[in-house]
Amino acid sequence: MNAGGQHKAATHPPVVENASAAGRIVLVCEHASNHIPAPWGDLGLTPDQRTAHIAWDPGALGLARGLASRLDAVLVHAPVSRLVYDCNRAPDMPGAMPARSEIHDIPGNASLPSEERAARTASVYVPFHDGLHALLMGRMARGLAPVIVTIHSFTPVYFGQPRAVEFGVIHDADDRLPRAILAEAQARTTLLAMLNEPYSAKDDVTHTLRLHATPYGLPNAMLEIRNDLIADAPAEDRMADLLAPVIAAAVAALQG
Amino acid sequence: MNAGGQHKAATHPPVVENASAAGRIVLVCEHASNHIPAPWGDLGLTPDQRTAHIAWDPGALGLARGLASRLDAVLVHAPVSRLVYDCNRAPDMPGAMPARSEIHDIPGNASLPSEERAARTASVYVPFHDGLHALLMGRMARGLAPVIVTIHSFTPVYFGQPRAVEFGVIHDADDRLPRAILAEAQARTTLLAMLNEPYSAKDDVTHTLRLHATPYGLPNAMLEIRNDLIADAPAEDRMADLLAPVIAAAVAALQG
Repeated sequence: MNAGGQHKAATHPPVVENASAAGRIVLVCEHASNHIPAPWGDLGLTPDQRTAHIAWDPGALGLARGLASRLDAVLVHAPVSRLVYDCNRAPDMPGAMPARSEIHDIPGNASLPSEERAARTASVYVPFHDGLHALLMGRMARGLAPVIVTIHSFTPVYFGQPRAVEFGVIHDADDRLPRAILAEAQARTTLLAMLNEPYSAKDDVTHTLRLHATPYGLPNAMLEIRNDLIADAPAEDRMADLLAPVIAAAVAALQG
Repeated sequence: MNAGGQHKAATHPPVVENASAAGRIVLVCEHASNHIPAPWGDLGLTPDQRTAHIAWDPGALGLARGLASRLDAVLVHAPVSRLVYDCNRAPDMPGAMPARSEIHDIPGNASLPSEERAARTASVYVPFHDGLHALLMGRMARGLAPVIVTIHSFTPVYFGQPRAVEFGVIHDADDRLPRAILAEAQARTTLLAMLNEPYSAKDDVTHTLRLHATPYGLPNAMLEIRNDLIADAPAEDRMADLLAPVIAAAVAALQG
């Protein structure tokens, strides 16, 4: 950190997989990685904290990769921990560079000077969303109307309270695709699936949808899977087997 | 144009003026220029057509510069004619690369192949909005909540019909700032000022507001000035003298 408290960091564009996919679905994983790039050290966290759900969404990337291959979908994911910058939050939201997450203080985020907030925004948030925007616009210009589905995982115990919900389907302004996914999940699986659980748009968790889907009128949904159900690669694969037909049927129902 | 019908063009980021301005207002001029970069020749248009309102918003940039200096505002404007790509339209809107504008055919835009649509989107539209986005996010991260005001001009005669309105104030989802500007214009000037004239959000003219203001909850307005009232530099200056206090008072009223 220089005298002004500002990190001069490289930019971190998103990772794009399956870029030439022919399907309409664009999968987005804002919390794919717990990587903290060099300029930010360890943010004052223990190794356990840096692998916990506060740093990323465990299992979300593996599940998203499984869905991408089964759905012929593009996958766009962020390469930096949400504790450096949470790409699903606007720069003026408290959760963008949180000083506390659930029961953990984040020492490296305490009292951030405004220049450091601007530097992280420019290094992590802006390149992620520019990369996603360019990809979406390219597909739209070619006539392939994108359908945006964001993939998240949530902790089974939060502030000491166990969560029963296994599969949360969250909507923002347009609830058509989320309601279709919920209906298909209830018809095709035994997962305990619920609308707008364990979070909803009121909790400001739908930033990516508001930024990329709503202004263009694109169908969109945010999916939350309880992370004990995708705790290793075989479990991620089983969940992808379960959810790919659910998502495919819901998108087909919209088009029908 | 190569065999695939695609222009390999340079990218065209926006021009930013008064970048260090301390005020909250960010002025945006999507139709500032009638410049057609080399790859696109003259689009098959006559010199008269290339200087007409179909190619740009005459007077808008001069007025916006006058407002920027009087309001201590940043100004962001597009360097390419709306006939190559209209930066106030999404890539899937017919007006983005129009084959016809008012009573004029645009030969260079007839039956564009999808790769050419994608190339123009990548060359003109995406860099413009990425540049504006980065600027807005930098200011937001520093705690300077932006207020977005887009500056346009309209032709006094459209499809042969004269237009009486002189100053149009257009809102999208959030009508607070536009209504405040309209009230101040009616109180402080003799301009014939009207809400949502000569266009409204229903005509898909508020794309920039939907993309940059609504997702972040930023106050915003689109201003349309009849172009015969800003037909030369002295007229642009007089209009800036008239409208700067109107805009400043409206923004102050929002904050009050």
